[in-house]
Amino acid sequence: MRDITPLVAPESIAVIGASTNPEKSGGILFNNLLQGGFSGPLYPINPRAAEVMGRKAYPTVLEVAEPIDLAYVVLPRQFVKDAITQCADAGVRAACIITAGFSEVGDSGRKDEEELRELARERGILLAGPNTIGMVNAECGMMGSFVNFPKWEPGSISLFTQTGIFTGALMLQVMSQETQRLPVGKSIDVGNKVDVDELDFLEFAASDESTKVIGFYLESLSNPRTFLERAGEIAATKPIVVLKPGRTEAGARASSSHTGSLATDDAMFGAGLRQFGIVRAQDEQEFVNILRAFAPMCLPRGRRLAIATTSGALGVISVDLAGDYGLELTDFAPETTERLQEILPDWLKPANPFDFWIGIDVKGPEEAHRTALGAIVADPNSDIILCTLLAPPNADFPGFANLMSEVRQASPDKPIIMVIYGGDVRGRWIKALEGLSIPVYTSIREALSVLAALAGRAGKD
Amino acid sequence: MRDITPLVAPESIAVIGASTNPEKSGGILFNNLLQGGFSGPLYPINPRAAEVMGRKAYPTVLEVAEPIDLAYVVLPRQFVKDAITQCADAGVRAACIITAGFSEVGDSGRKDEEELRELARERGILLAGPNTIGMVNAECGMMGSFVNFPKWEPGSISLFTQTGIFTGALMLQVMSQETQRLPVGKSIDVGNKVDVDELDFLEFAASDESTKVIGFYLESLSNPRTFLERAGEIAATKPIVVLKPGRTEAGARASSSHTGSLATDDAMFGAGLRQFGIVRAQDEQEFVNILRAFAPMCLPRGRRLAIATTSGALGVISVDLAGDYGLELTDFAPETTERLQEILPDWLKPANPFDFWIGIDVKGPEEAHRTALGAIVADPNSDIILCTLLAPPNADFPGFANLMSEVRQASPDKPIIMVIYGGDVRGRWIKALEGLSIPVYTSIREALSVLAALAGRAGKD
Repeated sequence: MRDITPLVAPESIAVIGASTNPEKSGGILFNNLLQGGFSGPLYPINPRAAEVMGRKAYPTVLEVAEPIDLAYVVLPRQFVKDAITQCADAGVRAACIITAGFSEVGDSGRKDEEELRELARERGILLAGPNTIGMVNAECGMMGSFVNFPKWEPGSISLFTQTGIFTGALMLQVMSQETQRLPVGKSIDVGNKVDVDELDFLEFAASDESTKVIGFYLESLSNPRTFLERAGEIAATKPIVVLKPGRTEAGARASSSHTGSLATDDAMFGAGLRQFGIVRAQDEQEFVNILRAFAPMCLPRGRRLAIATTSGALGVISVDLAGDYGLELTDFAPETTERLQEILPDWLKPANPFDFWIGIDVKGPEEAHRTALGAIVADPNSDIILCTLLAPPNADFPGFANLMSEVRQASPDKPIIMVIYGGDVRGRWIKALEGLSIPVYTSIREALSVLAALAGRAGKD
Repeated sequence: MRDITPLVAPESIAVIGASTNPEKSGGILFNNLLQGGFSGPLYPINPRAAEVMGRKAYPTVLEVAEPIDLAYVVLPRQFVKDAITQCADAGVRAACIITAGFSEVGDSGRKDEEELRELARERGILLAGPNTIGMVNAECGMMGSFVNFPKWEPGSISLFTQTGIFTGALMLQVMSQETQRLPVGKSIDVGNKVDVDELDFLEFAASDESTKVIGFYLESLSNPRTFLERAGEIAATKPIVVLKPGRTEAGARASSSHTGSLATDDAMFGAGLRQFGIVRAQDEQEFVNILRAFAPMCLPRGRRLAIATTSGALGVISVDLAGDYGLELTDFAPETTERLQEILPDWLKPANPFDFWIGIDVKGPEEAHRTALGAIVADPNSDIILCTLLAPPNADFPGFANLMSEVRQASPDKPIIMVIYGGDVRGRWIKALEGLSIPVYTSIREALSVLAALAGRAGKD
């Protein structure tokens, strides 16, 4: 077990290959570190420039007098090994090799990569990559990537991935959202995984105070048994979500030809994840969805599901899907039923799912939503809440943001998940939910797949 | 079997309860018909106004001298029956009762609804509703709803639904999209289904030339056996997609308490749908997704799936999910493999899924995408194409729209489905696909669930 803090949360950074051209990878990455407001000193390493983007440049890391925690390496492949040797000579503690063209391009690259691995072991320098999009740590302002992400804010999710291009494009999309942005504060892509691996990151994330949820995109495991056991211990306090493709036999074959690595026995790995209480996402969408639901750290006390809806049709679809996902519908407590009756005509008795569109006709949209959502979220017999709301103009009311804030404050620890259908009003409602730890999903299936993952945590805390 | 053309495609419309107040339901609906540019005469019926929104008003339908195909009824419940009687007296051929407050609110409403049913039978007038959001027929410019939809364009999908509020909000969302809008040209919500039912609509849609795909949201069936047999015949030329919640026992109970109707035996109905080649959507998202894929009427000749991707990770996830959905991966034809090799280094052999990110490094983004997508879509061994593309800035190229247009033209009859991840570039690429009959989905699971539905049509044409 090693401390990878110098890599993931460095206090000083050099960029070897920092370019004065803001369109080249080495220029983009250095500029991203500048724009991100990295909290420590930044040293551009460029033998052909006196300064890079206003910062004094150095010919090599050896010329920098101050200690360097981390060096990004953005050089053509043939110069990478020498750069790492110089880093080791200069006492640089970690390097992130952005450069591609190693084991993923065949035998000669594989040989070069082996040499880097040897170098890391001999010299005790931490290596991430090669062939990575880089690393982000919003806490210290390290936007260390050649992807032009919008600036990340500190967040409770820490992410480890093993494929830069996928992570780059998917995270670009997720982090560009105006609402319901994924609160990822730290992300590391180890690319070809020459040295630092998922076990190293697991230990870092376990002891990192601001990390509350840990996500792994894995293609191969260095030591599956050790990973499972240790992840199982950590998952008792910090939920862990794993996306590892190759669930099926055909998928495992495709995975093995993609990474060139030996396929882990997937059935055994999957059983291990279940045994150790680690959540496995089935696909990329579920991975993001589940992480978003765990991030607020409202974890359920039990598995009893209550559904509030303004669409009988969506209510019935929810019951079907809850069955598919093995969730249980709760019976409302008598005091809840009594309150819900207030917005229904006498002949209609409240039931779960509670469809209260008629309450909008009877009492108006504000009182109907206030009574229904207030009572159902507060119900002592429910542990998990699904709200599927319709947002046509006649369901709208000015107090939606206030109402949801009150509902959230009254039950701060109960997971609430929403699906909203409609036009302009839908957009306004989703904006009103920002900051309330109420994730919104685009379909009932997505919401229930997430609720199933949350229910799997029940009683773990 | 009856001809419901006067209801669904009327040549003249009266609005009983057309209000001069543009915020009341009767005013909104009349204004929507005006703004939608209805192609025939419009008669506002309002005893307290000389004109409504610039059109001469009449105290009752009896005062209108010209023939009226359809009357919308937007009146308080106690006036509805008399209005329908007057319609019958005036020779109005069909009425759509927007008014709510009938069987869905209990016994007295149920009795009133029965009287409407009797009236329709005795007088031979077609009735839709009560308790409906109305009907749209873009072909004749009938935006006959109190929902403020953006104007619909004529489209190949015709939709029958039995729950206005759900349909209203969901369709509001789907029809408000800037890209990938669902091409629904005709939509009828029969609400409480007092008279006109799914069988009537099925016959209309079967003989309607511009209807190519038929969608049903059903809560109850008037005659399941007849519906299945007739739908099976029609589905041989026009794909039919059914969403009927209540798949599970708990769902069926919830459905029955929602609509008050007896639950159809769902297992038997589901088996019938399969037997007769009718597609069943599992949930509201899949319903919309599958309709979108059928709309271009590129129907596959077989079930052989080819995958082009710029992410090895997404490729592997696709293989896993293709297995879950029972799809078969094809082996590329030799000429395809030969072409694909051009953008790969020699040591890497083309396979399905074909991951060509490396081709972007080798040949640049334009040539890589051109070769990969061109060859794979044209491959004689593939019937269905999934493209999962990453759209970070370094994958972008100016000719994306042209390329996709060429790829589409070279294989006009082969279904192509896309998933794109990225930031700004993603948005531009999705816009570039408008009009090319290439549906874009937000996740691989959604795409593969749709491909499974398309594969179910293989060889049907």
